[in-house]
Amino acid sequence: MQIAILLYDGFTALDAVGPYEVLSRLPGAEVRFTAARSGPVRADTGALALVADHSLTEVRSADILLLPGGPGQTALMSDEPLLDWIRTVDATTTWTTSVCTGSLLLAAAGLLAGRTAASHWLALDQLPTFGATPSTDRTVVDGKYATSAGVSAGIDLALLLAGRIAGDRTAQAIQLLTEYAPEPPYQAGTPATAPADLVADLRERASAYLTA
Amino acid sequence: MQIAILLYDGFTALDAVGPYEVLSRLPGAEVRFTAARSGPVRADTGALALVADHSLTEVRSADILLLPGGPGQTALMSDEPLLDWIRTVDATTTWTTSVCTGSLLLAAAGLLAGRTAASHWLALDQLPTFGATPSTDRTVVDGKYATSAGVSAGIDLALLLAGRIAGDRTAQAIQLLTEYAPEPPYQAGTPATAPADLVADLRERASAYLTA
Repeated sequence: MQIAILLYDGFTALDAVGPYEVLSRLPGAEVRFTAARSGPVRADTGALALVADHSLTEVRSADILLLPGGPGQTALMSDEPLLDWIRTVDATTTWTTSVCTGSLLLAAAGLLAGRTAASHWLALDQLPTFGATPSTDRTVVDGKYATSAGVSAGIDLALLLAGRIAGDRTAQAIQLLTEYAPEPPYQAGTPATAPADLVADLRERASAYLTA
Repeated sequence: MQIAILLYDGFTALDAVGPYEVLSRLPGAEVRFTAARSGPVRADTGALALVADHSLTEVRSADILLLPGGPGQTALMSDEPLLDWIRTVDATTTWTTSVCTGSLLLAAAGLLAGRTAASHWLALDQLPTFGATPSTDRTVVDGKYATSAGVSAGIDLALLLAGRIAGDRTAQAIQLLTEYAPEPPYQAGTPATAPADLVADLRERASAYLTA
């Protein structure tokens, strides 16, 4: 089972590594980190690079395609060769998936028109531009398109897919091996549960960032 | 604030990347991925390498030291130059931390004697050999030593530390930006909640692995 995970400058590392940690443990999984050029790809903070072992020209198909999000996604929204690659691989997949603003890349490639999708809560309002219906659900499965909310939500999405692909017992074994029994010290993980003034503050900062 | 994260052949990627994603967002954070030699370091699955921008000789101090776990930890338990490095950096830290079997490296370095610590549930029984008291808690703070359970637990540990270091509001902002409102599709994340036969099965497989 071929699993292609896209890397690009300015991706968010946990978007990619969370699902990788789950999906790579599926029986027969062969994960290929893939980028425009093979080699180190720097994440959004600048403090970490992941190595893409493969280039886009080497990987033309996959059983699962995963697109992480991150600030670098914005620059790719009009990158036609990349969007073409996404469409090419998508034509071969059983599951086409995204974490965070990765769903905007799927949308820009024209793959989410008429579908419901998740994204980072600060980016949900961009989905309708591409004919997609935004959902505040943490994970959304619409046909073969499985999208998740921001950053950490990719772990939940990957476990859900693991169950669909390999059965509940295998997914539970992966959950137990990765000891995924979360105990967040706060309940601030969504705009609905976080302090309202904090949500407003981050919306303002994001707006300034996006129009800078 | 200097944050040193150790990488080594056979580490588990999420152990390192989960806490990185939280701690790198602290005000003034400067994360340094550090390994015996700078360059790509391959994780346990073989399918992913993270780049260590720094070598052990370059990093001699840190405000926060983080040791991830993973199968590669076993080979390091008698690596005296590495254990020396851990002790050297520990002498300068405000927080010395670990995820998963990373606590066994702290223990082997002699830093957990007389202390309580967490680890991967399959490795907890190794802590008493080093004079440490194992805890099945997901996160354990004993003095400046903050240890967590397996793999995904590093995210919870990092958020807890973020609150101690920068206050609740900053930690909550990080939680909201990373949308950390987990919804695991199963309740199999600990030996106490997973199906008993699955726990027994994984214990047997781990035992075979460790004595192989």
